[in-house]
Amino acid sequence: MDAIKVGLIGLGTVGAGTVTVLERNANEIARRAGREIKVVQAAVKDITKPRDCALDELELVEDPFLVVNNPEVDVVVELIGGETLAKELILQAIANGKQVVTANKALIALHGNDIFAAAQEQGVMVAFEAAVAGGISIIKAIREGMAGNRIEWLAGIINGTSNYILTELEQTGVDFAGVLKDAQDLGYAEADPTFDIEGIDAAHKLTILASIAYGVPLQFEAVFTEGITKVTHQDVLYAQELGYRVKHLGIARRTDAGLELRVHPTLIPRSRLIANVNGVMNAVVVRGDAVGSTLHYGAGAGAEPTASAVVADVVDVVRAMTADPNNRVPHLAFQPGALANLPAVAMDEVQTAFYLRLELADKTGVMAQVTDILAAANININALLQKADATQSEQSDTATAIILTEPTREGDFNAALAQIQASGSLVGEAVTFRVESLA
Amino acid sequence: MDAIKVGLIGLGTVGAGTVTVLERNANEIARRAGREIKVVQAAVKDITKPRDCALDELELVEDPFLVVNNPEVDVVVELIGGETLAKELILQAIANGKQVVTANKALIALHGNDIFAAAQEQGVMVAFEAAVAGGISIIKAIREGMAGNRIEWLAGIINGTSNYILTELEQTGVDFAGVLKDAQDLGYAEADPTFDIEGIDAAHKLTILASIAYGVPLQFEAVFTEGITKVTHQDVLYAQELGYRVKHLGIARRTDAGLELRVHPTLIPRSRLIANVNGVMNAVVVRGDAVGSTLHYGAGAGAEPTASAVVADVVDVVRAMTADPNNRVPHLAFQPGALANLPAVAMDEVQTAFYLRLELADKTGVMAQVTDILAAANININALLQKADATQSEQSDTATAIILTEPTREGDFNAALAQIQASGSLVGEAVTFRVESLA
Repeated sequence: MDAIKVGLIGLGTVGAGTVTVLERNANEIARRAGREIKVVQAAVKDITKPRDCALDELELVEDPFLVVNNPEVDVVVELIGGETLAKELILQAIANGKQVVTANKALIALHGNDIFAAAQEQGVMVAFEAAVAGGISIIKAIREGMAGNRIEWLAGIINGTSNYILTELEQTGVDFAGVLKDAQDLGYAEADPTFDIEGIDAAHKLTILASIAYGVPLQFEAVFTEGITKVTHQDVLYAQELGYRVKHLGIARRTDAGLELRVHPTLIPRSRLIANVNGVMNAVVVRGDAVGSTLHYGAGAGAEPTASAVVADVVDVVRAMTADPNNRVPHLAFQPGALANLPAVAMDEVQTAFYLRLELADKTGVMAQVTDILAAANININALLQKADATQSEQSDTATAIILTEPTREGDFNAALAQIQASGSLVGEAVTFRVESLA
Repeated sequence: MDAIKVGLIGLGTVGAGTVTVLERNANEIARRAGREIKVVQAAVKDITKPRDCALDELELVEDPFLVVNNPEVDVVVELIGGETLAKELILQAIANGKQVVTANKALIALHGNDIFAAAQEQGVMVAFEAAVAGGISIIKAIREGMAGNRIEWLAGIINGTSNYILTELEQTGVDFAGVLKDAQDLGYAEADPTFDIEGIDAAHKLTILASIAYGVPLQFEAVFTEGITKVTHQDVLYAQELGYRVKHLGIARRTDAGLELRVHPTLIPRSRLIANVNGVMNAVVVRGDAVGSTLHYGAGAGAEPTASAVVADVVDVVRAMTADPNNRVPHLAFQPGALANLPAVAMDEVQTAFYLRLELADKTGVMAQVTDILAAANININALLQKADATQSEQSDTATAIILTEPTREGDFNAALAQIQASGSLVGEAVTFRVESLA
């Protein structure tokens, strides 16, 4: 069969990785795909800049529209990120009847509904495995491997930067700012780390995972998003003492009330496999009603792990090109006409257990006051630690209380917490994190 | 689109699970597949026997050839196991132009080459995800998700019975026979456990994984196979003391000399994620040159986890039915004409580290004799424990030595071991296990 001609848009880390992998493993890939896959053209911002890959087999251009309009190109691979230009280019590629592969999670999370509708109309595919958790192929696992299941919930460590910072917070005594600086020095965090540490990147990915798991349109705006900036070394140690680890999770769960979509730091039992996923690695646990819990682990970012997903997508779209367009794997796992309208559950209605750290004022009966308020709200206490406060001076009688609650409605918990704050029992603000058993 | 009509052969645990999952999740599955999937006929040995699933929508027959010859049936799902009749039925189904799904690992490992050749000729597919590690979809992950990679090695816990027994050996003081009896009582081990505890089942599965990872024909006869019967509670505890866990692994590794294919109990560092996979669960680590190490975890057996893989395969073949037969995912991941002839590496040439437990005789200088022999063979010692022997009487001066070597050629290790055995330093036989870092 004829060679497949790929046009790349963007030749940064992932683009160069893709060229390198396609070249190094050309023989292996052709033995699988049944034909050669060649990058024939790549669009870059600055044609004179040195690149981390061989350039002798491909034409460099500065106008990305030359790639999407190139009649030679069978598959357009978009790796520039961002929303505006990337969307325009992909829609143009689709209009030209090209297959598309992208690693752009923000684009899919925010504009995927439009893009897939356009692709559907043209009978082409837009593949996006590289958009979530790099080389793990979690999208394929959910969309195809679990096609017989009703997905109950999924929970993933889907932002390597956050996981690296949390791992370092646990294993070193360095504070958040110091760990972040180290991560930046190592290239694990961006100069502007907002998207990672505020949870936005994870929310993009959760949006995508939830859509393919539940067959709902992409709805980034419905995701509750909380980053890791308020996690401290001390809280991680208290969690450890209670048998938990703190992980930044993206969680989607189907309940009778609808679909929970949330991204936040979460205490999970240390005995869970996913609690032992450290550093920049990613992992997603998916629970299906037939298969039970599965875990999918691997590198979530980096040149070649992401390239691995990009290349697998290219091979996939090349294979599906000869199939009836109405009989391919649908973009969002469910047929476009069969997407559901599961309402997103408001956070007040979500049931989770809570970790609550309180600095108790130097007064008699403050602990009783706290436990009375929780009892009155029907919030059961699962575990309680009381500590002399290391952050206070030695003369101080203030103490730290760490409470693990049983699962409770978040609205009820917040109401009780407001009462505790108003009671005068506390010094400073209470610190809370959600707790999930992932059972 | 028209409903897809499935004919089942076998309605035992997995067959009944498949009917149940297809019925319970009919709506979800149809929303994904774009059409209904219905079991219309099932062949059973005894039509009067009660079944663990609803039977009102399907016709029961006792002659399985009625299913493979039924012109109504689009997809034949073979779930009877065994080699002879199953092979005959599948070849007949292929000759009739039907798509085939099977969970039969022995059949694929031993006769897959013939079966795939026949399917190729007829332009039909034989899907077999359920044959390895139940619902994990490890075949899809390697064959499609890692299509851009050169696979370096893979190592899997792919026999739940063995993993259950090893977990119990570690966590209870019960001896092998007692743990096996418990496993049988719980339904985790067969009345005749030979296939599981002697490693044959794992060897079948490794055969399949190695073929799709490396693009080599199925070659069960080339797999070195050792079961778990010589693992003791005491060895598991010593391993623990050294920072290791004992797992029964199927390992395939590409080296300059060819392909290592081996199934045996293995010490692996406790810090590896796969070392923490306990009970009947399965997990496979696959290392690709682009993606790095990935881990895939889930239930490896049981009615619904296996049914999950069967249903996913049915959806897959239904989708691929409309594609050019020469442009589908090849059965063994690589095009049939592009399979390689990697020679299997003889065990003597394999490099691994070793765990060596010696009962030292009550004589001066025995330990020095052992270490001298190892040193003369250029085998470095990584760790050494010396223990008073709890199994001997209190007056005895014999001691137990546990040695962890650095990686060494197995032939050299065995030669040194033969010298140690011949030296008169030992009481009884030496106990050895291979050690893998999985780094």
